[in-house]
Amino acid sequence: MISVVILGSGNVAHHLTRVFLHNENVKVKQLYARSIKKIQLFESSVSITDNVALLSKADVYILAISDDAIAEVSSFLPKEAFVVHTSGSVSMDTLQNGGSKGVFYPLQSFSKDKEVDFNKVPVCVEAEEEHHLQLLEKLANIITKKVFRINSMQRSKLHVAAVFVNNFVNHMYTIGNDICNTFEVPFEVLHPLIEETAAKIQHINPKEAQTGPAKRNDQKTIQRHLNDLDKQQQEIYNLITKSIQHG
Amino acid sequence: MISVVILGSGNVAHHLTRVFLHNENVKVKQLYARSIKKIQLFESSVSITDNVALLSKADVYILAISDDAIAEVSSFLPKEAFVVHTSGSVSMDTLQNGGSKGVFYPLQSFSKDKEVDFNKVPVCVEAEEEHHLQLLEKLANIITKKVFRINSMQRSKLHVAAVFVNNFVNHMYTIGNDICNTFEVPFEVLHPLIEETAAKIQHINPKEAQTGPAKRNDQKTIQRHLNDLDKQQQEIYNLITKSIQHG
Repeated sequence: MISVVILGSGNVAHHLTRVFLHNENVKVKQLYARSIKKIQLFESSVSITDNVALLSKADVYILAISDDAIAEVSSFLPKEAFVVHTSGSVSMDTLQNGGSKGVFYPLQSFSKDKEVDFNKVPVCVEAEEEHHLQLLEKLANIITKKVFRINSMQRSKLHVAAVFVNNFVNHMYTIGNDICNTFEVPFEVLHPLIEETAAKIQHINPKEAQTGPAKRNDQKTIQRHLNDLDKQQQEIYNLITKSIQHG
Repeated sequence: MISVVILGSGNVAHHLTRVFLHNENVKVKQLYARSIKKIQLFESSVSITDNVALLSKADVYILAISDDAIAEVSSFLPKEAFVVHTSGSVSMDTLQNGGSKGVFYPLQSFSKDKEVDFNKVPVCVEAEEEHHLQLLEKLANIITKKVFRINSMQRSKLHVAAVFVNNFVNHMYTIGNDICNTFEVPFEVLHPLIEETAAKIQHINPKEAQTGPAKRNDQKTIQRHLNDLDKQQQEIYNLITKSIQHG
């Protein structure tokens, strides 16, 4: 049985609390948030507080708070505590607690109103000490089969890569949607293509999966496409086309 | 029972032939290809030819050939024939047959070595005459539940949108993969995020789904990310970030 205190009231804190509360191998000893209102929905299942001076003892303190608050809040935590944060973009050394440090980073895009199937969520773990790393692996294995040892340098690169495959991909969807709206075509016609595009690269390298007018240097089609786009869309079309061809 | 002649030997011709051959409501009367070798694998199940003068009669002639060849090959077809092409980017009027014209466009990314589940493939249909449009709808409904009436103007816009949500999205995956390779992080850590990003917009508008440093104008993170990228990646990062912020 691993005991945890979870600090934070955002999406990650919310989903970790839910999954840990429903698992008999983890004991959620306490939740902390600066604004207690935001964690009151858990009041009936677990002790809650908005006072860092009143934190319970636990094997792991999980800081699931905004990147900018990690240094400050960690400095208030008990000296002997093993503290981890859950951020993809913050180095382990940013933690300012007196005791041992680590990272427990679930790499997924969370929304509060959507149930998360943690089985499929990779968790990246890091710790200063090997026994803590093993503790985090054990904790991660309780909720998912995908556990990776990833150090701070690797994690920061993973975060950049995630911007491309998540944020920027989603923006490509937005532009596709905008084009459909402009010309009154239902965007849902493209849903299966979107799904298939994502599914394909789970099996083959994305470079090998590349198709389209840019890839085959089909200038006639490229020119016709450019005529249908607004100025910003054209800029993006040109730049990505160039990158596909020379990348 | 709808009878068809399929012309072509590429991915679309291949998969349409397979799905129609396995369906009792369609009779594939003949396959045609300029190079007969490429359709010899179907020889035992259906009549094949490389001579347009020897085409069988059929309710629909399906031209699943390269965009540039559609005008020429269609001009050789029997005068009374109802001819459709399968292209996303070619107008119906490009067909040069003497008879009636139409389009039967399965909107999916096909690879020859990967089985296609046509149930999930949207088919966009268009025809000059209402009774032919109904025939195409009937034919499409045999293989999929997703049938859309889409005219040539709409289809050409859909094709531009598809470049963004398929080709350009795949290139974002490639860049993500390149970043992972450069810093020796397993790309598979990102697979679930990629799947979730695609799944999310099947339910909510992509604009609402947008997250990340660009969206929240997190300049500190943006600068750190730029430091990790090569020149071409930086250009793309900057342009898409700008587009997310002002789009």
